Parts: sequence; C-alpha cells; structure tokens
Amino acid sequence: MSKMLEEIRQQPAALERTLKSALAQARELRRRCEQTRPEFVVLAARGTSDNAAQFGRYLIEIATGVPVSLAAPSVSTLYGSSLSLKHAMVVGISQSGESTDVNLVMERARDAGAFTIGVTNEAASTLARIPAQTFLVRAGREKSVAATKTYTGQLLVLYLIAWALGAPYRLEDLQRLAEYASAALRLESEILRRAERYRFMEHALVVARGLNYSNAFELALKLMETCYVVAERFSGADLLHGPIAMVESSFPSFLFAPAGVTWPAQREMLARLDQLKADTLLVTDRSNREASAHRNAIVIPAKLSAKGAVPEDLYTPIPYIIPAQLFAACLADIKGLDPDRPRALSKVTRTM
Amino acid sequence: MSKMLEEIRQQPAALERTLKSALAQARELRRRCEQTRPEFVVLAARGTSDNAAQFGRYLIEIATGVPVSLAAPSVSTLYGSSLSLKHAMVVGISQSGESTDVNLVMERARDAGAFTIGVTNEAASTLARIPAQTFLVRAGREKSVAATKTYTGQLLVLYLIAWALGAPYRLEDLQRLAEYASAALRLESEILRRAERYRFMEHALVVARGLNYSNAFELALKLMETCYVVAERFSGADLLHGPIAMVESSFPSFLFAPAGVTWPAQREMLARLDQLKADTLLVTDRSNREASAHRNAIVIPAKLSAKGAVPEDLYTPIPYIIPAQLFAACLADIKGLDPDRPRALSKVTRTM
Repeated sequence: MSKMLEEIRQQPAALERTLKSALAQARELRRRCEQTRPEFVVLAARGTSDNAAQFGRYLIEIATGVPVSLAAPSVSTLYGSSLSLKHAMVVGISQSGESTDVNLVMERARDAGAFTIGVTNEAASTLARIPAQTFLVRAGREKSVAATKTYTGQLLVLYLIAWALGAPYRLEDLQRLAEYASAALRLESEILRRAERYRFMEHALVVARGLNYSNAFELALKLMETCYVVAERFSGADLLHGPIAMVESSFPSFLFAPAGVTWPAQREMLARLDQLKADTLLVTDRSNREASAHRNAIVIPAKLSAKGAVPEDLYTPIPYIIPAQLFAACLADIKGLDPDRPRALSKVTRTM
Repeated sequence: MSKMLEEIRQQPAALERTLKSALAQARELRRRCEQTRPEFVVLAARGTSDNAAQFGRYLIEIATGVPVSLAAPSVSTLYGSSLSLKHAMVVGISQSGESTDVNLVMERARDAGAFTIGVTNEAASTLARIPAQTFLVRAGREKSVAATKTYTGQLLVLYLIAWALGAPYRLEDLQRLAEYASAALRLESEILRRAERYRFMEHALVVARGLNYSNAFELALKLMETCYVVAERFSGADLLHGPIAMVESSFPSFLFAPAGVTWPAQREMLARLDQLKADTLLVTDRSNREASAHRNAIVIPAKLSAKGAVPEDLYTPIPYIIPAQLFAACLADIKGLDPDRPRALSKVTRTM
C-alpha cells in the first residue's frame, strides 16, 4: 500500500488533533481581529498549499466580506518590490515551512507592518519563526510527496482564521469536518473499482465553483503529479469563456457538485458537457439528490448540507477532496506508478 | 485569411489610437489617485480579459506597491456576499462590456463605496455606464471570437492605470509599445513555417514568470479555443511544485523569455525541461542574447529591454503575445479549423 493511501486514511484523526490544538489560538486571534479588523487579507503559498489558499480566499470573502488576494511571490522575490501592507493580514501556508519564496513574502510583509500568520506542519521550520502567530497543522509527518492530509489540515486552519475574522459559524461546528471525512473514506473500495476504467486517460478536465474551486486545482494537481495525466482545472464560468472548445467526445471530466448556490451553475455545466458527449464523473453527497441520481456519481454516504446563516456547501470542501485523493492514489497504483515518489519531484521544493 | 489574423495585424494602429484617446483621462486619474491613494486594487474579468487582469495585477504591484486582488465573481454572483471595498479601486475589464458577472461585481463595488473604473471596447455597453470612469479600448470592432487586439488594448490601458497609481515611467514611454508590436508582426512568415511542425500536437505547456505570466494564460487559452489543444499554463515555480511530473519526452513546451529578473528562473526551467527531453520553444527578443541563441527561439527583431528605474522586461508583454497569437492563428489554419468561430463558443459569453 502506498504511503499516500495510508495518509489519506489518517485525515479524520489529523483533523481532530489539529482542531483541538488550535482552539485557544483561534479565540485569541478573534479577539485581536475584533480590535483591529484588517482591510484585506493576502495569502501566500505554492503547490498544494496554494490550492488551500484558493479555498481560504473564497471562504474568507464569502463568510466575512474581507477582500482577499493570493500573493504573487515573484513580485517580491524576483522584482524586489515592497507592497503597502500596513492594514493587511498576511497568511503564509507551507507544509514544510521551508518554501523560500513564501518565507521571503512573509518577512517583507512583517517588515511592512502587516499582521502575519503562518500555517505549517513543522513546528521547527522557518515559517514557524517569522510571523507574529503560527497555526500548526497536526497531521503528523507526511511521507508521500503527494500532499493529502496536510491539504485538509490547512483547509481546517483556514476555517479557524475565517472564524477569527468574523465568519458566522461556531468553532464546535467544525468538529463535523472529521466525521464527514470519515464518511468520505467509506468510498475507498468503490473508487478503486471505478478508477480501473480510467487506466488509459491521458488528459482530463476538473470543474468546480466557489468553495470547491480549490478542489478542482487540487484534484488536477494530484492527477498531474501522481498519474502523469495532463489535467485542466476551471471554474465553470471560465471554461465557457473559451477553453470549452477543446472538449471532445469522451473527454474525461470531473465535477464537484455539492448542494447549494453553485449547483444550478454546475448542473448547467454538466448538461453542456453531456451535450458534447464528454465523459463526466460527479463528486457529491446525499444532500444533492439530483447530482446523486446522475448515472456517474461518487456519492459521499452522508448529508453534508449546512443550515442557517451559512452557505449550504460550507462544509463540503474537506470531505469532497477525499474521494478525489483516493481516485488519484488508486489510479496511480493501477498504472503501476509510485504516487509517493513521482518522477522529477522531491518533498521540499525551494523556488524563488 | 481569418479575421483573427487580420485583427492581429491591426494591433499597432489600435494601440496608437487607444493611447492617444486615453492620455487626458489617465492624467486626470493620476491627480485623483494622488489625492486619495487606494489601499488596494481589485480587478474583475473573465476569459481573455481575465488574462489581461493577471498582467495588471503584476504590473500594479511591481510598479506601484499597491496590493492587487483578482476578483472571484461568484462570491457576489452566487453567494451574494458583499465585500468591504470602501478604500479600494475596483477595475472591471470586458471586451463587450456585457459580462453579467463582471457588471454585477462592479455594481456591488460601486454601492460599497469603492472607486470604480471600467475598461471596455464598447462605448455603449453596460460596463461603460456603471463605473465612475471608463477607459475605452479603441481597437475597432473585434469580429473573431478569439480575442487578440482587445487583449493588447486592455494591457495598454492597464499601463495607464498603473501610471495613474504612481508607476515610475512616463506616458510618452508607452508610445514604444506600438513600435514593438510592429516589430513582432514581422515574424509572421517565420511563425507560419514553424507552426507546421505542431500539426499533431494534442497537449502543451506554457511557462512564464512575472509580467509575462498573463501571456502564458493567454497563449494557452488561444491554443485551447482555436486549435483544441489541451494547454497547461504555469509559473515556473508552480510547475516545479508538482505538475512537472507529467512532462514526458517530446512534451510541447513554450516559454516566454525576456531579459531581466525573470530570466535566471526561466533559464533554469528551460534546462530542466531540456533535461526531461521536452520539446521547447522560446519567445524572446534581441535583448536576451542567451535566449536568442537557443536552437528553438522566436526572436522579435528589436531590443525591447527597458532602462532606468523600471524592470527590464516592462515593455515585453504586448510584443511577446503577438508571436503567440500568430502561432495559434497559423496552427488553426494548418489544422483546417476556423479560429474565428471555434466550436461551442460565441463572442459574448454571459456567465454568473
């Protein structure tokens, strides 16, 4: 069994540990943000952590109204520019805590007077030292090069940061994320069976909207790095603005399809892809009956919809990436590839 | 001859017209920004215009230090959230001015107290009415579905907006962009010859950094929409964080390679791709001798490097996209496809 698959299975426990250990810190951060609300948030990351940042961007904007920017590290690292970040909260995210470019962005932000926060798996890393405050993802050592449990751990920390910025859910509500992750893990044998069919897939398309948009990036990244599939990722709206022209009959297409505000757009996207005779596969849960009834759907065996003043799909991104991770791990195995050691990659990537 | 090719050729004249007609407005905007400097800038767009926004994001951050966010329209259109934009400048970019989602973002931003600016080709469009100020791209009617002259026109307007925010170049310096575009157009017959070789290309990779990053998105989009090639686009740093595993021997790879601060990173990327035996093609100009000497380089016959207090590659994005546009138009023609009317697309795309 690959380490990747082992680590995918560890996610419920990792989520519980991370939540428990970060509660006090989240409350302290919320008090600080109540006193001084940042004008905007900047998230700095690379690779899988950058996909987590993409989630943080939607979550914070949707749940708090604070505008968010995803940092372009080369502005500091290559061009040497300094941004005006005095009224900003700047969050650096890195599994290893040793991304040279992310760390440089954080140093610059701190020097520019921003309030800085680090999110990392490694308590002894450089990223844990630079910012005013650091959240530790308690995922345990990640041995596979393909990140899985650190991604969902980072998503969880981003729920905490959004909460600190005023998001209208309770910290206790986040306990359900570990339960939902467990429900998603029950799909493993079904996914192993389904993955066989994709053995000869050479390219793919992943489509999502809103809170699950980051999962489109993350599934595509997993397909690229562990299965060597040329995988495109788009919001449905961006896909319609040009790229859809490349979709031919049988084009392998994956859609994240939670119930809630993104479903009408995704349903329309699905109809369009079906019309083009693309080969579609949905990731959904029991709350979305229509998507669950699709002839080709991976249905998480639980109802994940949120109620009340929060978006219905609020708690879907963590459980929804799990079938996608399982799919990539199983497909790599079927293809005889080692997802723990993809060619041309190492665990810590240092870029500028 | 395709309308796309005709419109590619019209770019020097369109750039001159756009610059001339917008000078007074740019000066007025600069005075306004000197009085009230925005805390941050939000750029809202879809499709090719979103690629232009990506350029604006780098340009404004590098040249002025004002942080920039690329809007995620679904935050407003689907989730109905309102962002705190009181101290922001919000710029909406749309060729037709009829992108429903971009227009909704602009209305919300105006209502939230942001200073709003529109950038469009159509004086009578909805986008020209909503914001406090609108810059017109004087490209003339764009008949091809594949946008070319409106993209470079939008880039030019973004130079004006960055200048208004304090970028350290002179308005007159922007006149050279039309000249550089003319120099790039002299490559047409060479590119027609080169494109033949790519007839059977099914997927591709485009790599760029910094100011040319948007061109990686734009070349990939042109390859997807006019040639039906599955085209990936990455910053070199992001490529190294996972996706590079998919690169096999002969993988068609395109790199934008101006002289200046991004070249060492791109040179390293090129060495890595050569090591993997990828099939590489560079877009460069005479200022970058090393890149020009590469066995497979499209060299714009002029020296485009900027001098003084600005980045050396400041003026490369407009001329550099022109060989890429020509390449897509020629390849579509070689493949017997109509780049003016890609399958599954229409000129005005309305999404939410």
